[in-house]
Amino acid sequence: MKILITNDDGIKAKGIASLIEVAKHFGDVLVVAPNKARSGMSSAITVEEPIRLTKHESSKGFESYSCTGTPVDCVKLAFDKLLDSKPDLILSGINHGSNSSVSVHYSGTMGAVIEGCIHQVPSIGFSLCDYHPNADFSPMLPFIKQIIEHTLSKGLPQGTCLNVNAPKGIPTGIEVCRQGHGRWIEEFDKRTDPHNRDYYWITGYYKNMDNGSNDTDNHVLETQKISVVPIVVDLTNHAFLEELKNWTF
Amino acid sequence: MKILITNDDGIKAKGIASLIEVAKHFGDVLVVAPNKARSGMSSAITVEEPIRLTKHESSKGFESYSCTGTPVDCVKLAFDKLLDSKPDLILSGINHGSNSSVSVHYSGTMGAVIEGCIHQVPSIGFSLCDYHPNADFSPMLPFIKQIIEHTLSKGLPQGTCLNVNAPKGIPTGIEVCRQGHGRWIEEFDKRTDPHNRDYYWITGYYKNMDNGSNDTDNHVLETQKISVVPIVVDLTNHAFLEELKNWTF
Repeated sequence: MKILITNDDGIKAKGIASLIEVAKHFGDVLVVAPNKARSGMSSAITVEEPIRLTKHESSKGFESYSCTGTPVDCVKLAFDKLLDSKPDLILSGINHGSNSSVSVHYSGTMGAVIEGCIHQVPSIGFSLCDYHPNADFSPMLPFIKQIIEHTLSKGLPQGTCLNVNAPKGIPTGIEVCRQGHGRWIEEFDKRTDPHNRDYYWITGYYKNMDNGSNDTDNHVLETQKISVVPIVVDLTNHAFLEELKNWTF
Repeated sequence: MKILITNDDGIKAKGIASLIEVAKHFGDVLVVAPNKARSGMSSAITVEEPIRLTKHESSKGFESYSCTGTPVDCVKLAFDKLLDSKPDLILSGINHGSNSSVSVHYSGTMGAVIEGCIHQVPSIGFSLCDYHPNADFSPMLPFIKQIIEHTLSKGLPQGTCLNVNAPKGIPTGIEVCRQGHGRWIEEFDKRTDPHNRDYYWITGYYKNMDNGSNDTDNHVLETQKISVVPIVVDLTNHAFLEELKNWTF
């Protein structure tokens, strides 16, 4: 079995090291990850400049490369230049910080997972709700192993991947759920530089807009469980298609 | 009526100028667009460095700013720092090049549209299947006007925005359809620099995997019509949720 691993916190992050350790139990591992932190990169690709790839390690059953591109570039480069055949599994993370709810849209971790899914490989993104560079990923690892085992034995429907988020601390279980509803607000911190010119840092806080629903990833994480959301590549609102067809252009 | 406009080709692109001209017929226009080309930026946000905002024009009913961030940063900054109240409409484009099918995932144009949708404003992305900087957008403009009129009068469901793509040349009509299936292949051009180090440019070609379906954006564009796909913010595969709940963790 061949497993491709990437992330968006960069190849030196603690989270990807933890994920590699779990993945090695399942088969050969190829790591292609950004050479630095590329958080918030979504499904971005590098169009305006060239990309470089650096080989780091190569031993029996393990190879690792860093890449100057985005997480999606890492997956694309692995397919086009490094893999002889389709991998059996693509894993991304473990992200330092939550990628639940609407954060799935901004997440480079999940961008890579969606790219894996576009390439028709079972793909899973793992995130821990703890942004600390030295976050403790160990309580999450047995659950990651279980989710990988189930995915390998049962498979995923075409065009569907998994977004897995774990609460900080000891998880009390795993729950399948839907993507929560919410958004980030008060997002920019305005400052003035020594030359009297304004600049802005992205910041703000997440506002939960689930209105008490108990079937969302937001809620599952609040109950100290691991959330598993099946994510689609096909973004069409199929339920609205027929109504939209009644608009007479 | 207040309309926010952005794009991913940058504030100087011909496509955004065409879109502004159409939008001015509907109300006051605020433009916040990247200061340079940011194609392929998806829903990326700028986390690792600060963002700058530059005011360009200000006249009755029209204001424009450029931003050093991504298309999504532009929308977020407009909401947090420039708009007194929610705009009535968010428009993005007109993109120089197709954003149909799976390209919706990589598109900065559509990243901005999804961001507008997360902010619960009717949001539409427009793209023309012509990458040329001097592409002729004029045949598309009457159709854009029509789509805006319908969207304003009928509204869009919460969490749904529109991905509109036009064929090169004179469109013969508008057709509502689903996102096509396919992916990009042979994606990197490997070169060697004068210092004998390898580098890679993203390139490749789109492979249609629709298998002859006639209800996809790929197909609609081939018939010289404008495709309109309703796009969701909630990425959950709801149809697969119940089956996934049967996985016994």
